[in-house]
Amino acid sequence: MTVSDLSERELIARISSRLPPAPAWMPVGIGDDAAVVEPERNRLEVLSVDALVEGVHFDRAFTPPGAIGHRALAANLSDLAAMGAAPRLCLLSFALPQQLPLADFDGIVEGITALAARHTMHVAGGNLTLSPGSPGPLVIDITVVGTAKRRQVLTRAGARPGDELYVTGSIGAAAAGLGMLKEAGAPVESNACVARYLFPEPRVRMGLLVARNRAASAAMDLSDGLGDAVHQLARAGGVGAVVDAETLPIEPEAKAWFSKHGDDAVNSAVAGGDDYELLFAVRPKLGRRLGEPRRHGGAALTRIGVCTIEPEVLLKCGDAGHRPLPGGYQHFR
Amino acid sequence: MTVSDLSERELIARISSRLPPAPAWMPVGIGDDAAVVEPERNRLEVLSVDALVEGVHFDRAFTPPGAIGHRALAANLSDLAAMGAAPRLCLLSFALPQQLPLADFDGIVEGITALAARHTMHVAGGNLTLSPGSPGPLVIDITVVGTAKRRQVLTRAGARPGDELYVTGSIGAAAAGLGMLKEAGAPVESNACVARYLFPEPRVRMGLLVARNRAASAAMDLSDGLGDAVHQLARAGGVGAVVDAETLPIEPEAKAWFSKHGDDAVNSAVAGGDDYELLFAVRPKLGRRLGEPRRHGGAALTRIGVCTIEPEVLLKCGDAGHRPLPGGYQHFR
Repeated sequence: MTVSDLSERELIARISSRLPPAPAWMPVGIGDDAAVVEPERNRLEVLSVDALVEGVHFDRAFTPPGAIGHRALAANLSDLAAMGAAPRLCLLSFALPQQLPLADFDGIVEGITALAARHTMHVAGGNLTLSPGSPGPLVIDITVVGTAKRRQVLTRAGARPGDELYVTGSIGAAAAGLGMLKEAGAPVESNACVARYLFPEPRVRMGLLVARNRAASAAMDLSDGLGDAVHQLARAGGVGAVVDAETLPIEPEAKAWFSKHGDDAVNSAVAGGDDYELLFAVRPKLGRRLGEPRRHGGAALTRIGVCTIEPEVLLKCGDAGHRPLPGGYQHFR
Repeated sequence: MTVSDLSERELIARISSRLPPAPAWMPVGIGDDAAVVEPERNRLEVLSVDALVEGVHFDRAFTPPGAIGHRALAANLSDLAAMGAAPRLCLLSFALPQQLPLADFDGIVEGITALAARHTMHVAGGNLTLSPGSPGPLVIDITVVGTAKRRQVLTRAGARPGDELYVTGSIGAAAAGLGMLKEAGAPVESNACVARYLFPEPRVRMGLLVARNRAASAAMDLSDGLGDAVHQLARAGGVGAVVDAETLPIEPEAKAWFSKHGDDAVNSAVAGGDDYELLFAVRPKLGRRLGEPRRHGGAALTRIGVCTIEPEVLLKCGDAGHRPLPGGYQHFR
């Protein structure tokens, strides 16, 4: 049975049946021309959209449906986390290949709804369409809305020279996990890297915590890699940065995998996307607000560098001196 | 020059350069991990998402870039109109074929931004990704947010037996226009039908007016055709309906075109999508609130039928009696 055996209304019903009751602040949810919600009092709204496209962001040969759904929403939750926002609602827009098995559709929806439920995020509505071609690419486009107090919103701008750079969790794991899956061309036994690629945990609690205690002067997420994030945070703040390669929290299993394949572990971890960790700039005096042992929401926090007056963004490699920090994943050019 | 000659940042800059300054209620617009907006006081928010997919919803052979952008946003504005909501902001998510000419990208963006400006809708953010395949389909996914007073939100539910059914403007024009373009396989000289297909005017003012004077008990838009809309409005209200074929405001040029091709004009106009007119149910006593000569926002309003206790949804065809009303466009099955 494929999605084209059902009507649009039947497919929508399969989504609705997996949702908790709509909250009181959502008088109209899925099923009308649009959703209707009551804004949260004394809060700003934080909005983001992200697309996961088959053949660009994932391969169905080795990404199970639940992971596809999870990753699509995780990318969005990570954007909210980077703004210090609390998740509130999302809208789902799918372009479905005609031959997509109904079980896969259900799996994708469950991947989304399970992660949404863990973050008390409500599905407010969406759109379903066919994907053209034979088979057409599966496209999952998710819009999220979160809330934040006015003075607690984190942006990319705001880093000053002397601010210290911190990263949550570990890096390189998702890139190594993707490499392992690509090499196998099929699902593989899970390990830290594969699990990170398939089911990344957006750092929502950490983003909220750092926003609430106002420790960070700037933040962004690592969807396109640490290198890209440092470059963008520096550019937005009008500063440079020096990242110390020796302090980078590279996932040990990833390091081993990169080395086995003759790749430089630091370069690979810095360039690798999909980790969905957060990068923060923190005024030196406010570092203690991050708390000891610098562990929140299950994520470690590691100091990896410092912002500088000089505009260059550099990687300090021990005795080998400084070199430009690689820039991360480029989508177009 | 194609979109793949530019970086993501350069493409985003091409969008930003076409936007008016961000309003005071949008402290963070395009360019960060997410947009930040201040909700409007004493208003509910109305959210919707809609996708326009190449090969499903449009053909680049005969749809100029400006029309692609216009249609993508118009579909969303029409959803807001059907809820009686005032447009506020939108988020744009594009999947772009690698070989898309940069001029076409600009044209699509201009089609969106021109229509958004006419409805004082602000672009708050978005996402750009490549579309896979050679060439991959162009996908334009737009999320819109509007606002409405609590007691003025229009939904599909609410029609009662005896309510009269009204439709704005004319029907069948877009379906005939699409037929003309398909037949030519290339751009054709514009006429009422072609113009309606390429540049439909969402009935935002009419939706707002009917919501504000509380004339309508239910509303929805005709994106999937009048037949589909009547069926859905009846189902949501738990009523049936009788539509009088002789009263249907079929666009004259469309009628001529359907007849020329041996198609039944009523069936074609009822089944044809893309008109983006509105369907209202109105309590008989409140019909006068619609005003005389029942013309608002440039759109005529025509009474086309009535809601019934009997659950059937019928088309009354003069002396030939009643038959089931065709159900409109089916996306999946």
